[in-house]
Amino acid sequence: MNPVNLIAKKRDGLAHSPEEIQTLVSGLLDGSIADYQMAAWLMAAWLRGLEPEETLALTNAMLHSGEVLRLPSVKRPKVDKHSTGGVGDKISICLAPLVAACGVAVPMISGRGLGHTGGTLDKLEAISGYQTRLDNKRFEGIVRQVGTSMIGQTDALAPADRRIYALRDVTATVESVPLITASILSKKLAEGIDALVLDVKVGEGAFMRDLPAARALAESLVRVGTLAGKRVSALLTDMNAPIGRTIGNALETREAIEVLRNRGPADTRELTLLLGAEMLSSAGVAKSAVQARAQLERALADDSAFTCFVKMVQAHGGDVRQVEHHEKLPTTKQRVAVLAPASGWVRACNPRALAWVAVEMGAGRTRADQVIDPAVGVELAHVVGERVERGEPLALLHVHRTSDAKPFTERVAQAFTLGAKRPALRPLLLERIEAPKPRRTRRSA
Amino acid sequence: MNPVNLIAKKRDGLAHSPEEIQTLVSGLLDGSIADYQMAAWLMAAWLRGLEPEETLALTNAMLHSGEVLRLPSVKRPKVDKHSTGGVGDKISICLAPLVAACGVAVPMISGRGLGHTGGTLDKLEAISGYQTRLDNKRFEGIVRQVGTSMIGQTDALAPADRRIYALRDVTATVESVPLITASILSKKLAEGIDALVLDVKVGEGAFMRDLPAARALAESLVRVGTLAGKRVSALLTDMNAPIGRTIGNALETREAIEVLRNRGPADTRELTLLLGAEMLSSAGVAKSAVQARAQLERALADDSAFTCFVKMVQAHGGDVRQVEHHEKLPTTKQRVAVLAPASGWVRACNPRALAWVAVEMGAGRTRADQVIDPAVGVELAHVVGERVERGEPLALLHVHRTSDAKPFTERVAQAFTLGAKRPALRPLLLERIEAPKPRRTRRSA
Repeated sequence: MNPVNLIAKKRDGLAHSPEEIQTLVSGLLDGSIADYQMAAWLMAAWLRGLEPEETLALTNAMLHSGEVLRLPSVKRPKVDKHSTGGVGDKISICLAPLVAACGVAVPMISGRGLGHTGGTLDKLEAISGYQTRLDNKRFEGIVRQVGTSMIGQTDALAPADRRIYALRDVTATVESVPLITASILSKKLAEGIDALVLDVKVGEGAFMRDLPAARALAESLVRVGTLAGKRVSALLTDMNAPIGRTIGNALETREAIEVLRNRGPADTRELTLLLGAEMLSSAGVAKSAVQARAQLERALADDSAFTCFVKMVQAHGGDVRQVEHHEKLPTTKQRVAVLAPASGWVRACNPRALAWVAVEMGAGRTRADQVIDPAVGVELAHVVGERVERGEPLALLHVHRTSDAKPFTERVAQAFTLGAKRPALRPLLLERIEAPKPRRTRRSA
Repeated sequence: MNPVNLIAKKRDGLAHSPEEIQTLVSGLLDGSIADYQMAAWLMAAWLRGLEPEETLALTNAMLHSGEVLRLPSVKRPKVDKHSTGGVGDKISICLAPLVAACGVAVPMISGRGLGHTGGTLDKLEAISGYQTRLDNKRFEGIVRQVGTSMIGQTDALAPADRRIYALRDVTATVESVPLITASILSKKLAEGIDALVLDVKVGEGAFMRDLPAARALAESLVRVGTLAGKRVSALLTDMNAPIGRTIGNALETREAIEVLRNRGPADTRELTLLLGAEMLSSAGVAKSAVQARAQLERALADDSAFTCFVKMVQAHGGDVRQVEHHEKLPTTKQRVAVLAPASGWVRACNPRALAWVAVEMGAGRTRADQVIDPAVGVELAHVVGERVERGEPLALLHVHRTSDAKPFTERVAQAFTLGAKRPALRPLLLERIEAPKPRRTRRSA
């Protein structure tokens, strides 16, 4: 089937065979399908949708466009977690060593921050010397010996996904459940894992702002991942306020270390335990959620999770002293307090607004080629559900010079909603999605 | 508004402002909108549709991307005809001089054949020396002196339409009523005309195979052309059999000359008169259809239409002897008869099948860079509604060597449907569309 007929088929709302999807994806890489043809197909797919079988075929075509790891020397069950992206989301950094300390292998390939969401790689690189680029042998060796290794995506991994994502980014075809599903799964399945736990964020700071949209994405991911032969489950978790108390790279790494030290903010810790329990269950290591949670709490209490992290950082060439004494992580000279204009309860804290402040301070990037500053960021002095008195700090801006905070103080203050009434607690975990349901992922046009 | 937001707006089914459409079109030309972005927008527009006002804005943006002729020295009303393309459609060649002979200026810019439909330029070039590329001054001069000039599109005319059409051709976004409307009108309005008559073909040999689709296109053309300030009307005409008795360039030019000589096949003559009457009415030259028809018939009978054609050919450097003695037009040595396998009435004659035979014989092209053979083609010995006896010729294949006909005889025979019953006559004119109706051209996704 020639490219024009392939595009016309999706334009007319018909389903492709796996061979047709393969033709499209390999055609894009070998030049027999032009960028503009793929762009037209992507728009047709955005508007007409893809069936789960088509999404699986797209996942497989992108997955096999590059290297697929096998990690044959790792005998333990291999499980990873993927988050759809949030604000202050440092969970991977404490989660991977915690789960590894409980006997599960976690081969984790992460991304960098772009736009308002941060990236695990940037946070890890706040640790001096930490290498995120390792060859496959070294990666496999660390996973085998330490239980987890966290690296960055290489050019050899799912190159078709990179090409297609770059096109989607400039053709208004990003927000499509099947296209997002295939993009996430193709990269994660390339890690050679047995099971995958998805943290699908919902709310103001998330890619999916409302529950039905997030649920549709989670169901698609679980369904297609299951069709691909993996154990896949998803947690829908709240993203209407920043996770924990920090936004910014070294700040977040520090908070993750605090969790590994069996301390840290309650929500960061809780989210880590929820996802950890899910991973232990997926791996078949724990018999029940209760047992899984007990195992995880033990690993935090007996320091084995923290020790695992130290070993991993060491294996990656990172400066272990910065982990053992996290005040040695990059830091700024100044902290400028943003004060509460009135007394009251913190009823809301806009994660997206604060995330953009952090990006503009230098903690993130709006273009992939920008250099970030690991030290700067926003520290929350009061979070949702806490009471603040007028004149007390709402947040501390970590800046190199006091004047650097100037453009942001007003915006940070406005990100907080104070009120006379104590807000109702919103649970972190909104839903859990496990068994594939017989729903279509097709988007109605 | 940046390109991604523009694409997203159409993707979400919203209407663009004229400024947004202008940004898209000029962006494509100046490089600020990439081909793949335009391709995504075109697919969104294909699926979501464009409002008449958006289609007008697209028409204007493409029109003003290049030169727009004014022909200030031509004082007579300027009217042109555009056909959506058929098989054996040589009407322009007899129509333009006929209408010019009745006092209307016909500045006609035509295209070449591509795929199964032929092109007026190729037919005119069957006349030795006929120049289809003239500068604007010369074109204007011929229209002023002779009443009509028929030339080819230059690169200076609606360049944005060419860029966009080339993209549509390879991204399965050709068959869209608003996109076709804007493409046709942008080229025709560049001729500096006051009025336009559209011949929208319907049936097996046409771009639009069924009446509702053709009607939608005709209504869109009339509505948007009217919004653009021109008098525009459309005839829906039958294209379920070839027009006249010839398919092939010199063969068709010869048939058109026959019509100008007040002879020729009845349907070719009738279609010419129908469209001619519409043009005279549009120009305000005739008070009624009856009067217009009488004027046209007089111009055929008194040789003034033929004389006008001779003058035009002369002005274009063409060999007038080939017009006055059309047996001097390029011809083949051999005519191979395809015989009727049985006796009966010709109930149908598949125009598309015969058109592709003619293309493969060398009369047309499947790629724009192919050279055509003016002499070859298919001549119909019997047409729909006629009785043929077994062993009599159905058609004559005009070929250089007898063996050249071999691959085609079977296909030509199969293009004919013979039956025991005389077929009902289907009228040439199916509908006339004049006043814009308050219908949306939006295509439901």
